[in-house]
Amino acid sequence: MASNGIRDKVAIVGMGCTPFGEHWDRSVDDLLIDAVTECIGSVPGVEKDDIDAFWLGTMGSGSSGLTLSRPLKIGYKPVTRVENYCATGSESFRNAAYAVASGAYDCVMAVGVEKLKDSGFSGLVIPTPANDGTESELTAPAMFSLLAPSYSKKYGVDADTMKEVMTHIAWKNHVNGARNPRAQFRSEVAKETISCSPLVAGQLGIFDCSGVSDGAAAALIVRAEDAHRYTDRPIYIKALSFVAGPAEGPLDPAYDYTTFTEVVRCAEDAYAQAGVKDPRTEISMAEVHDCFTPTELVLMEDLGFSERGQGWKDVLEGFFDLGGGLPVNPDGGLKSFGHPIGASGLRMLFEMWLQLRGEAGERQLASPRLGMTHNLGGAPGACVSFASIVGAERD
Amino acid sequence: MASNGIRDKVAIVGMGCTPFGEHWDRSVDDLLIDAVTECIGSVPGVEKDDIDAFWLGTMGSGSSGLTLSRPLKIGYKPVTRVENYCATGSESFRNAAYAVASGAYDCVMAVGVEKLKDSGFSGLVIPTPANDGTESELTAPAMFSLLAPSYSKKYGVDADTMKEVMTHIAWKNHVNGARNPRAQFRSEVAKETISCSPLVAGQLGIFDCSGVSDGAAAALIVRAEDAHRYTDRPIYIKALSFVAGPAEGPLDPAYDYTTFTEVVRCAEDAYAQAGVKDPRTEISMAEVHDCFTPTELVLMEDLGFSERGQGWKDVLEGFFDLGGGLPVNPDGGLKSFGHPIGASGLRMLFEMWLQLRGEAGERQLASPRLGMTHNLGGAPGACVSFASIVGAERD
Repeated sequence: MASNGIRDKVAIVGMGCTPFGEHWDRSVDDLLIDAVTECIGSVPGVEKDDIDAFWLGTMGSGSSGLTLSRPLKIGYKPVTRVENYCATGSESFRNAAYAVASGAYDCVMAVGVEKLKDSGFSGLVIPTPANDGTESELTAPAMFSLLAPSYSKKYGVDADTMKEVMTHIAWKNHVNGARNPRAQFRSEVAKETISCSPLVAGQLGIFDCSGVSDGAAAALIVRAEDAHRYTDRPIYIKALSFVAGPAEGPLDPAYDYTTFTEVVRCAEDAYAQAGVKDPRTEISMAEVHDCFTPTELVLMEDLGFSERGQGWKDVLEGFFDLGGGLPVNPDGGLKSFGHPIGASGLRMLFEMWLQLRGEAGERQLASPRLGMTHNLGGAPGACVSFASIVGAERD
Repeated sequence: MASNGIRDKVAIVGMGCTPFGEHWDRSVDDLLIDAVTECIGSVPGVEKDDIDAFWLGTMGSGSSGLTLSRPLKIGYKPVTRVENYCATGSESFRNAAYAVASGAYDCVMAVGVEKLKDSGFSGLVIPTPANDGTESELTAPAMFSLLAPSYSKKYGVDADTMKEVMTHIAWKNHVNGARNPRAQFRSEVAKETISCSPLVAGQLGIFDCSGVSDGAAAALIVRAEDAHRYTDRPIYIKALSFVAGPAEGPLDPAYDYTTFTEVVRCAEDAYAQAGVKDPRTEISMAEVHDCFTPTELVLMEDLGFSERGQGWKDVLEGFFDLGGGLPVNPDGGLKSFGHPIGASGLRMLFEMWLQLRGEAGERQLASPRLGMTHNLGGAPGACVSFASIVGAERD
């Protein structure tokens, strides 16, 4: 069976998020301190010492809890490091939430950080350990590029239209990011610039790919019944779900690169926990893992926002635009923020935090009720998926 | 404050543990499958599909939950990877336990694995990323070797006696390991062989160091009230504590290398959770992190088993021997098992499982009531510490 969930048992009462970007002058320590300090500062009366335990998500910017405990000088507290590919930051949050819901701790912090720019990571080369020769050797853009022609073929979308769909997704996310002072890229980009950008892999141009950046984010989590002691506008966790798939896609002749089964199962679990029957109408907004533009397209269907084979129409009709029926990546997404792996999941929750509290400025949506965040890690056919649903009201 | 704990909220109802050793013919996948299969097999009527979620501890034998989900073919389930230096396996267990206690899942598995022998890891060379030049560059044996002369000096224990104490610890653990079919080293070793073994670092001879091995272990965890549906002899979690320290020891002139403050604080937290007032009399047995013999000596005092400066006498008097007042490392410890990082914490719990159920064969203790497991990760002055307390009775 799936998760029973911990609906409305825990709440977020404070958050912090650094600007994402090329922080050549900031170390991992600096980014952690910035995010945690902002998070604590967002909750009047709370001091660092009030936090009972920490969870740290990082893929490669450190090992063990010392990565956080040392720069933060938190004394002798628990710090757990979690890693789960590109869902690393979200996993920090999920495990922290369970610890609070268990009663083990009253007040915990989930933190995520990644510093990629000075690590040599380009997004194109992944250092893989020696293996038995059956592992995929494709780059991330190459693996995700397979989605576009597969989708085109299956649903009869011609190549020009497909390019238009991908371009719309990149354009939309940059429009949103241009309205976000914390984004790495804060300019709108003309559709022509996007569609004519140099190809990286398959049909993916540079603007179909998210960037590489540094960043950190943090969330303070308490039991729901305690939330109003910390803030008058907490946000409540309605669902947390995670799936690690069988990773058999690349070996399975039936896998056609037009869906992430892991995401479908993960979303089903999340909706069941939150009591969501029709995500297209019940979810007010979503931050999803737009690592590449065709990923976002496929996710719209896997998350149940669009019917199968219809997502491309919804994209072109602006259904997922900031002013559309279900705004997706209102903060600008990975497209505008880059993807510092351990931080991204918490950056998505930060947008939910702002939107549900009415603090999203130029990007503010009208009365959002339920927000969803989603991460994907790995590659089509072999991935992990995380989903959360949060809301401003405790049911 | 420390943890409220989850005393008696969750129970272990099944376990598995591979033999530890040089498994040149077994892959990480093989070890995971072996441990999980044995764990499931230990609970009549339970199938793999009955497990709702997994936690995987590994330091370097894989990234993300796919490391477990792929070889195990568990379908579409949550798998979280955790890492926390040498406490990695224990952290898998701790996070899995919180998830059950939170109500999110009914039945979860904590798994740990590490395959070191064919990774090039020798125990002497640690590949550290480029840093700012202030990081310690000592090997693990060198860092822990500092404990012996510091202890000698502080408590007036002459060098010969200190060597005798260290030798007794190694001898005792090999005596225990010789009675354990799953240990890497299954022979008693004469005290003279130990004390005359070639020096590795400072006063540490080869036999003062734990070995390098491959292994995996797993535990099935459910809510305490459900435990008897799975087994007639569950073991209950009384305490789980973790500390990531400030890592300031090497910079602090007052730090004298005769204690791990992280362990002291971690143990205090665990005892408070379990209601233990006098660990020396109330703890029936302990598996502790004997990475090097002086580590075990210092731990006896940090865990409150011996008075400060008196641990060496307790060691020589056999208080921690299998037939002593408080048997320590009854399964043979890291000395006999080596230290496949992600697996060690669960291997320690496996001994508690056997002992508390009366299944420890030649090593069986008479009516143990409370058992403790302990891990240390990092180095003196800059470490993380985990402690658990488990018991056969639900209070």
